[in-house]
Amino acid sequence: MRIALLGGTGDIGEGLALRWAHDTDHDVLIGSRDPEKARDSATAYVEELEERGIEASVKGFVNEMAADRADIVVLAVPPYHVGDTVESVAEKLDADTILVSPAVGMKGDEDGLHYHPPGTGSVTALVAQRAPEEVPVVGAFHNLAAAKLSNLDVDLGVDTLLVSDDADAKATVGRLAEEIDGIRALDVGPIANAAEVESVTPLVINIARYNDEMRDVGVRFH
Amino acid sequence: MRIALLGGTGDIGEGLALRWAHDTDHDVLIGSRDPEKARDSATAYVEELEERGIEASVKGFVNEMAADRADIVVLAVPPYHVGDTVESVAEKLDADTILVSPAVGMKGDEDGLHYHPPGTGSVTALVAQRAPEEVPVVGAFHNLAAAKLSNLDVDLGVDTLLVSDDADAKATVGRLAEEIDGIRALDVGPIANAAEVESVTPLVINIARYNDEMRDVGVRFH
Repeated sequence: MRIALLGGTGDIGEGLALRWAHDTDHDVLIGSRDPEKARDSATAYVEELEERGIEASVKGFVNEMAADRADIVVLAVPPYHVGDTVESVAEKLDADTILVSPAVGMKGDEDGLHYHPPGTGSVTALVAQRAPEEVPVVGAFHNLAAAKLSNLDVDLGVDTLLVSDDADAKATVGRLAEEIDGIRALDVGPIANAAEVESVTPLVINIARYNDEMRDVGVRFH
Repeated sequence: MRIALLGGTGDIGEGLALRWAHDTDHDVLIGSRDPEKARDSATAYVEELEERGIEASVKGFVNEMAADRADIVVLAVPPYHVGDTVESVAEKLDADTILVSPAVGMKGDEDGLHYHPPGTGSVTALVAQRAPEEVPVVGAFHNLAAAKLSNLDVDLGVDTLLVSDDADAKATVGRLAEEIDGIRALDVGPIANAAEVESVTPLVINIARYNDEMRDVGVRFH
């Protein structure tokens, strides 16, 4: 498959790009609003993988072109850019492209980070609202610590939580997630259940802040 | 220490009562609005522990009397009874009694359970608002699966998340939590961070619903 990571120059995009390129044979497409930046990141990821003896297909494109070429489009952009990013690539999407939403709206104060969803109830619901109707949307990869994800020496051993109103798309993203070593995908039902999934992200950041030696903490359900 | 479980005849109360009575030397006080019901539950717990060769101190009282005699008062009641329960025992509490809030406001629909906090932002904040000012309040034990907790044959291997504006009270409850085999306590900061902690409860229930063989699921951060 061809997986586009829009905002793939950022930290969560980097982590997913490196893991998929390292652990699978999928083609990874790095998207950015700036194609030069996308190509630079792609080159850096390829070099890092080469040092580990992996010859990977990672290429950089402007977001629209990455989305156009991909089967899976991951919106690895900050939450306040998600709506605009969906609209900027909307005409490149169709019923055969799965849109994946990992972003989480948060607000910080002196105590910690707090879940701060958009008016739609969750970022995943916002993506579903902004995307063309026929495009399946899956919420996933919210609660992965970026620093751990992009460090290929780290065993992950974490769960990722999936929500979608499209069972086939959810199953496809679940398989892609589990092709990364150390990630298990759990089904949390439809997009209506996204808020509780997304709000684990500020929680793990607060746990990291208040507990020594729990930096980049992940979560496992059992 | 003397630990009162108000609503200790319910499922989470039963689990905490059995675990503390089994794993520690603390006195466990079962509270209920109906003292007869409290005594019946206490007798049942003592009998179950006797079958396992444990001689435990578990006694039943009306809520007010349980609170009056305790160092730790756990509000193991449904969320819509929490405010009234705090008020009913308020004059039995003082600066040396720690009030512990495990309840979570939830709303269900066909998709699953959703976090539904009171206007104070969290049930823990509601407790802090209703309790006498000098009484320290700790949010804890939200995300423990009651059926696992009350089955002493099950190894827990789960985390409980603590929030409080009183560091000493939080440390005390953390130690009490960790005296139960298989529970690790993690600090999540002040009560302002309670909402993300409480919203893990509907999440784990949704995970149990959508994943086979994940009934009574717990959570571990690492």
